[in-house]
Amino acid sequence: MTGKLTGVIPPVVTPLTEDRRLDVESFERVINRLITAGVNGLFVLGSTGEVAFCTDAMRAQVIDAAVRIVDGRVPLLAGVIDTQTARVLDHVTAAAAAGVDAVVATAPFYAVTHTPQIRRHFEILGDRAGIPVYAYDIPVCVHTKLDPDLLVDLGRSGAIAGVKDSSGDDIAFRRLCLKNRAAGEPLTLLTGHEFVVDGAYLSGAHGSVPGLANVDPDGYVRLHRAFLEGDWATVRGEQDRLAKLMEICLSAKGITGWGAGVGAFKTALMLQGVITTNQVPEPFDALTGADVEAVRTILAAVGPRALDPATR
Amino acid sequence: MTGKLTGVIPPVVTPLTEDRRLDVESFERVINRLITAGVNGLFVLGSTGEVAFCTDAMRAQVIDAAVRIVDGRVPLLAGVIDTQTARVLDHVTAAAAAGVDAVVATAPFYAVTHTPQIRRHFEILGDRAGIPVYAYDIPVCVHTKLDPDLLVDLGRSGAIAGVKDSSGDDIAFRRLCLKNRAAGEPLTLLTGHEFVVDGAYLSGAHGSVPGLANVDPDGYVRLHRAFLEGDWATVRGEQDRLAKLMEICLSAKGITGWGAGVGAFKTALMLQGVITTNQVPEPFDALTGADVEAVRTILAAVGPRALDPATR
Amino acid sequence: MTGKLTGVIPPVVTPLTEDRRLDVESFERVINRLITAGVNGLFVLGSTGEVAFCTDAMRAQVIDAAVRIVDGRVPLLAGVIDTQTARVLDHVTAAAAAGVDAVVATAPFYAVTHTPQIRRHFEILGDRAGIPVYAYDIPVCVHTKLDPDLLVDLGRSGAIAGVKDSSGDDIAFRRLCLKNRAAGEPLTLLTGHEFVVDGAYLSGAHGSVPGLANVDPDGYVRLHRAFLEGDWATVRGEQDRLAKLMEICLSAKGITGWGAGVGAFKTALMLQGVITTNQVPEPFDALTGADVEAVRTILAAVGPRALDPATR
Amino acid sequence: MTGKLTGVIPPVVTPLTEDRRLDVESFERVINRLITAGVNGLFVLGSTGEVAFCTDAMRAQVIDAAVRIVDGRVPLLAGVIDTQTARVLDHVTAAAAAGVDAVVATAPFYAVTHTPQIRRHFEILGDRAGIPVYAYDIPVCVHTKLDPDLLVDLGRSGAIAGVKDSSGDDIAFRRLCLKNRAAGEPLTLLTGHEFVVDGAYLSGAHGSVPGLANVDPDGYVRLHRAFLEGDWATVRGEQDRLAKLMEICLSAKGITGWGAGVGAFKTALMLQGVITTNQVPEPFDALTGADVEAVRTILAAVGPRALDPATR
Repeated sequence: MTGKLTGVIPPVVTPLTEDRRLDVESFERVINRLITAGVNGLFVLGSTGEVAFCTDAMRAQVIDAAVRIVDGRVPLLAGVIDTQTARVLDHVTAAAAAGVDAVVATAPFYAVTHTPQIRRHFEILGDRAGIPVYAYDIPVCVHTKLDPDLLVDLGRSGAIAGVKDSSGDDIAFRRLCLKNRAAGEPLTLLTGHEFVVDGAYLSGAHGSVPGLANVDPDGYVRLHRAFLEGDWATVRGEQDRLAKLMEICLSAKGITGWGAGVGAFKTALMLQGVITTNQVPEPFDALTGADVEAVRTILAAVGPRALDPATR
Repeated sequence: MTGKLTGVIPPVVTPLTEDRRLDVESFERVINRLITAGVNGLFVLGSTGEVAFCTDAMRAQVIDAAVRIVDGRVPLLAGVIDTQTARVLDHVTAAAAAGVDAVVATAPFYAVTHTPQIRRHFEILGDRAGIPVYAYDIPVCVHTKLDPDLLVDLGRSGAIAGVKDSSGDDIAFRRLCLKNRAAGEPLTLLTGHEFVVDGAYLSGAHGSVPGLANVDPDGYVRLHRAFLEGDWATVRGEQDRLAKLMEICLSAKGITGWGAGVGAFKTALMLQGVITTNQVPEPFDALTGADVEAVRTILAAVGPRALDPATR
Repeated sequence: MTGKLTGVIPPVVTPLTEDRRLDVESFERVINRLITAGVNGLFVLGSTGEVAFCTDAMRAQVIDAAVRIVDGRVPLLAGVIDTQTARVLDHVTAAAAAGVDAVVATAPFYAVTHTPQIRRHFEILGDRAGIPVYAYDIPVCVHTKLDPDLLVDLGRSGAIAGVKDSSGDDIAFRRLCLKNRAAGEPLTLLTGHEFVVDGAYLSGAHGSVPGLANVDPDGYVRLHRAFLEGDWATVRGEQDRLAKLMEICLSAKGITGWGAGVGAFKTALMLQGVITTNQVPEPFDALTGADVEAVRTILAAVGPRALDPATR
Repeated sequence: MTGKLTGVIPPVVTPLTEDRRLDVESFERVINRLITAGVNGLFVLGSTGEVAFCTDAMRAQVIDAAVRIVDGRVPLLAGVIDTQTARVLDHVTAAAAAGVDAVVATAPFYAVTHTPQIRRHFEILGDRAGIPVYAYDIPVCVHTKLDPDLLVDLGRSGAIAGVKDSSGDDIAFRRLCLKNRAAGEPLTLLTGHEFVVDGAYLSGAHGSVPGLANVDPDGYVRLHRAFLEGDWATVRGEQDRLAKLMEICLSAKGITGWGAGVGAFKTALMLQGVITTNQVPEPFDALTGADVEAVRTILAAVGPRALDPATR
């Protein structure tokens, strides 16, 4: 499994209907488009996949639909995000029973924990999950940064199979890559930062988990293949274009935070005709008006030309 | 309901058996002791009540047991803590169906939100809960501070009935009290800071939600009654003693964070003979050895003399 | 000296001319008005006193003017704020030579330090200053919170004579008061929080250093005297009024941060006829237009009636 | 000037004697070694150069010595770090009079400022400095992140000539590079992050300001030349080695924060025979014992082989 999980593994958006139920048909189009583009795996119920907003019933629907749609074509990972160990374990059990290939868990949050508890948390998950566990390092959400030495220890002991790094800390990531290499590469290391996937590859990442790949899967696949060929000029050029495209997430005036980012991904997918609406979960509202136009403008300028199929 | 919820409303601990199931008999002893001491309400599944650690099944057990034990003797509040609105609503529905009198909800967390979404979140809860909603201001856990003007607005519109303030921000609390008074007192304001309940009363709090009241309910009841009588010398003296007792939460050497605080409450309750073990949920370990002795020493010096019943 | 430094010790504003030189005549009026009101000491070059904005030449002017104007009528403290130990020592030497009675120093800042260096910093200052040193706990500026145990240790060893607490952490302040009392009161403890001086007194403060006392010295003197008499009803009432008046610092729409707070103090003093302009140092601009009117409105409603001398 | 300031511009350490005076002979050896290695400029009185610890007299000594030693061989930049505008301007005046080629200034700190004041601060500096001003983005010290749009605006208006980025935010840096390019490259962009200079070059950096270049100037010069030749395999390999060497800054057990980093640079320079002692300013202590041995071990394993001159 670890071997498979290199390359591009997009965190898949969760398309909603106007009344905020799962839009299964749009979900199917999103997933099939990603697989067609050549991604190496799929990650549902990440931060991009609205895990924090989905009720348990909704999480089950998303996983069941994804297992059915993917149908073994690529590895399927599921986020099992919750506050503390026992609650995460409930999600692990449900996800494993539904047939995902691996789960992705953060450090504990809400109640304050420190390194000994974070270590124990991942040890418990690794011990009881039955399927591979990936550590999700996302301090902007959980307010804890996972230490590189801790992660490599957890890799060596087999508790975790890899790391999805959304830490915003490229220095710690370089250190993690070097320590992992010195330990014999127990961990698969994936970056979640759409803007600087190229730098992460230079640092030693084995793959990427870019939310923007929902909008432009070909771009991130192309970037990854150029990296494998050592063609850094192409890597860099593609990354520069994708970084300009990622500005869709910073263009909204009417909304901020999570809703601006995922709201922009969904808006771009709607404009590309992939999903039906750009609806987002409560307490957020979908982008409208000038915010939609801002996405359209950026997409037209530096996007994958999905708005102009004739040029593809 | 709002009128009733002044005075001392302890956040009740959730006693566990050694193998981390709910210890119903200990829970019964804790609750009955609190009611006997004269508290004005009870709050289960707060941060002290391990809400972040309890699975949904465990949350249901805790609420069902509390409803049965309390049996209408005092108002019962339940924490409905979860990441975002839809997940919180699931807990609200379950708690209301089980018979609690009110629920306590934080701002959304994990995914980043800002004021407009926080406002909408509480408006949705207030609109759909069917029972009173209290806002829980606890930035150390949710990493957002609730703004005094927002809270008073939500009180005026009827979305929330009150605030449990665990913000650690006495300036914002004073401002909240004054703004609430200027608006005609729509909100019941409760402080969660064991160390400085007296200052909160001076600022305008209507009551307190002190975790340490699990250990010393008489002390906080005495403090509250002295406040009602305007006897500030007694208020201050009792608070000084309780602040010294609260040092049990900062005395552990072997553990930090949440486990040091609630671990100390449980250890003190065990030493007082109220609960059977001081077990805490994974990924934490119960206090042991010198950490237990530190609690014992402080309890003997400044505690409610529960260890020496002859002197009561 | 320590004995003297209880009561109200305002951090004195530094009035400027339009072209941002020291306005000595206004400074004289501010200081004399404070002494007339019965304050127990004066603190120049605090955060309110623009220490971070004053060149060394300007700091010397401020101290020289203050020494001359105060002329021994009350103890005079001076801020010696700078990044690290050697730079602070230069200011200490200058201030002591100019004749101040004590200096006020923060933890080191800019370069990251931890407890051992902070301890050493204050030990060096205490050892070499020749006059009493007060520790200034102001994490919003220096991004380090001074630990209560460290402060009491430094008091016991004679390195520092007291603490000005602007930490915004009322729990730590209560703990500091109790630990200081248990150690035999080596430290004089002063609160800098205008909104909650009453709570700090309840916790054990010996005095206050409220910037708002520039605007309403009588109020804080009255509050302190009521505290000394144990008249908590008056303490609380006066504090409620002063808290409402302190809203001048949160009323500006055109400016935020430091300039909103000190800008409002200066604007109120200008409206009261005490200083000539409300000029503030670069890179800030003085309050104008609606921001000035907001200060005027609050001052008229809950101020010391300085605008209507006939009613005094 | 802007054109010249690409490439490697090390922030030069400030060698001290045991009694903490400037060690001019060691300083001379450090500077000459850097110039011999082919660096493109020198930056004295940066964070690495102890600017926060140097008295004004010491700052003058450092600048005077550097001007004399460098003698025009490469451009010389000086840090003019201080809390707010007027104090920074005093340092600018002194540095310009002493003959440096450009100055490096941070956002204001200590007193809280926001974007309008930060913008005004740099506009004032740019207007009055008379020599080029570089913005130093170092939130770990000043607790403000400089916004990419603001920086490009300041570049376009001529207020600043470039940016030294020590922000630890590779996403913002990529955005800054792209926005600067879109604006016609008004800014020279330099990275201060020793661990990930390669990624910064990929993002669009024109040069680097690595403290570790004091220890291994050849490495960073080699890395830069490989970058200019588009030889990314060499860039990456050299960066991996330098990242391993940079672990000297994280190896100390006896000290943390600033003193661990610069303390390690100085210790390595002492072990290399370049400077006489590894003394650091108060309130820090020099590395000793096992901390020195840890530096020695890393230096021997992945350093520039300075300890084994025969192999050079």
